[in-house]
Amino acid sequence: MSKKIIAIDLGGTSTKMAIVSGQGEILQKWSIATNILDQGQHIVPDMIKSLQDRLALYKMTEADFLGIGLGSPGTIDQAAGTIEGAYNLNWAQAQPVRELFSQAFDLPFYMDNDANVAALGEQWQGAGDGLSDVVMVTLGTGVGGGIVVNHQLVHGAVGAAGEIGHITIDPELDFECTCGKKGCLETVASATGIVNLARHFAESYAGDSEIKQMIDDGQLVSAKDIFDQAQLGDHFAQSVVEQFCQYLGLACSHIANMLNPQKIVLGGGVSHAGVYLLERTHQYMNQYCFTQVRESTDLVLARLGNDAGLLGAAQLVNLIQNGVRE
Amino acid sequence: MSKKIIAIDLGGTSTKMAIVSGQGEILQKWSIATNILDQGQHIVPDMIKSLQDRLALYKMTEADFLGIGLGSPGTIDQAAGTIEGAYNLNWAQAQPVRELFSQAFDLPFYMDNDANVAALGEQWQGAGDGLSDVVMVTLGTGVGGGIVVNHQLVHGAVGAAGEIGHITIDPELDFECTCGKKGCLETVASATGIVNLARHFAESYAGDSEIKQMIDDGQLVSAKDIFDQAQLGDHFAQSVVEQFCQYLGLACSHIANMLNPQKIVLGGGVSHAGVYLLERTHQYMNQYCFTQVRESTDLVLARLGNDAGLLGAAQLVNLIQNGVRE
Repeated sequence: MSKKIIAIDLGGTSTKMAIVSGQGEILQKWSIATNILDQGQHIVPDMIKSLQDRLALYKMTEADFLGIGLGSPGTIDQAAGTIEGAYNLNWAQAQPVRELFSQAFDLPFYMDNDANVAALGEQWQGAGDGLSDVVMVTLGTGVGGGIVVNHQLVHGAVGAAGEIGHITIDPELDFECTCGKKGCLETVASATGIVNLARHFAESYAGDSEIKQMIDDGQLVSAKDIFDQAQLGDHFAQSVVEQFCQYLGLACSHIANMLNPQKIVLGGGVSHAGVYLLERTHQYMNQYCFTQVRESTDLVLARLGNDAGLLGAAQLVNLIQNGVRE
Repeated sequence: MSKKIIAIDLGGTSTKMAIVSGQGEILQKWSIATNILDQGQHIVPDMIKSLQDRLALYKMTEADFLGIGLGSPGTIDQAAGTIEGAYNLNWAQAQPVRELFSQAFDLPFYMDNDANVAALGEQWQGAGDGLSDVVMVTLGTGVGGGIVVNHQLVHGAVGAAGEIGHITIDPELDFECTCGKKGCLETVASATGIVNLARHFAESYAGDSEIKQMIDDGQLVSAKDIFDQAQLGDHFAQSVVEQFCQYLGLACSHIANMLNPQKIVLGGGVSHAGVYLLERTHQYMNQYCFTQVRESTDLVLARLGNDAGLLGAAQLVNLIQNGVRE
């Protein structure tokens, strides 16, 4: 019997846990509420307790496992084995996560940030088809990303690689980003970004449009409203989506021309606009790509949904314990 | 005595060869003219003959070496061990380079394209200081590039990774690129690119300028003329260089925000404008970078000059034979 892996996807609301086979099959899956009270000091003990209970329930011991993998929000210090700046966990200060797990389990422990772990999950078991070079772009409130090159996650000098949301996609843009810059992809190609674009274009749009009317009336408009109306034929909403896709396609072309991955994977909430979003973005990406790259780098939708984090956490362990798959 | 490496930097005019220590010291260096006659069929036999003569001269045998590394123009097929599309070598068809070397020497043989090999050389022994993540941008007639991540070269799906010259740096640009697209970095931030910018801006510039006058008189203007005049205080030339640096800085920010390498290295002929070019480009790059990236990704000038190719070729062998240095 080949060994299993314990995978954890730590989030601000709930923590998902699973027992995963070395081939990427989720054998058991459960979740617990994330208790962020008292500066988040219960989080790690709660995870450890839940794992111990489950292993007892399944009559499994440490000898059944290759190791433990964890995906988490915040900044991971790989050398120190700590996580800090995870504000949705109330972890402002560095937390000795690896040390706590190592005290509880005699197993190798690996962790990475959630965007990287989701990218690794999609690369291994999802839309990345296990190929060597896969980049994931996650479209949510902001824009996140994770980069896999030669089957390995790219961290860069201080772990800031994959900050695709903060690519300066157009230096002329005037929307302020949460990072303090202007011109960031995130200010135009996220859930908040598309609303920025709609408000901006509404100022000069003269035709009839439900979305423009909602904005002019001071109503709250969501990304979903805009995508829905665009698909129903609202010209104003369509022009906003077109601009969104042009910026996103340009950013994907930068990834493609630079790294030539086999796949760029679009995931996250906004990507639920699905094929409509994908096709338009792909068209712009192709227009901006070098021929050889256009023919070899594909743009696809994510396939794993919420399981990406668990499978990526499992693959963190797999990669290091079983060597890089090439 | 630790083993040495045979390094070859194959170029359209001359072929440089060296014996390099495992620590990156060039122990012997020589070159031969590259004979591209008869569809370049003499090139590989000439290299092999020269190597055999030198090894005899130095009383060295295959047992003294770890392997042979080669950097070459053209497209490398790593699986087949062939090179094709190297037009400055008259190699339009695939050449069985690895097979010919393997017949002549009982040594491991590795090759990669010249832009990648130069990047690996600078990463290992040059401005990259042996750090794990280094990107080289080479400014010549065009713009080339090579990317090292986790001490390894990035090839991507079909070996097109590092095509930094074909990033669509501004979709509004109207200069045609040799690749068939418009908007490529190469059309504005290379030796030909800066002349494109000068001609374009000359149409609307009203002030006095030696460069503008040369253009208006139909004289040939070179990148060097423009950089020289800018440093002498010509306002028109300065505004052209400023635009050049803004585009190059934006491209470097894309690299930095995506990969967060410790160093981005500027090399090639145009980089001889040196500190003047570096400082302005760095300023724009910083303006377009996410804070954490700005503080951890540096922009520097290449240090190895013509030896980058030889040292990179040696490191190709070193990396694979001695394992990745991490």
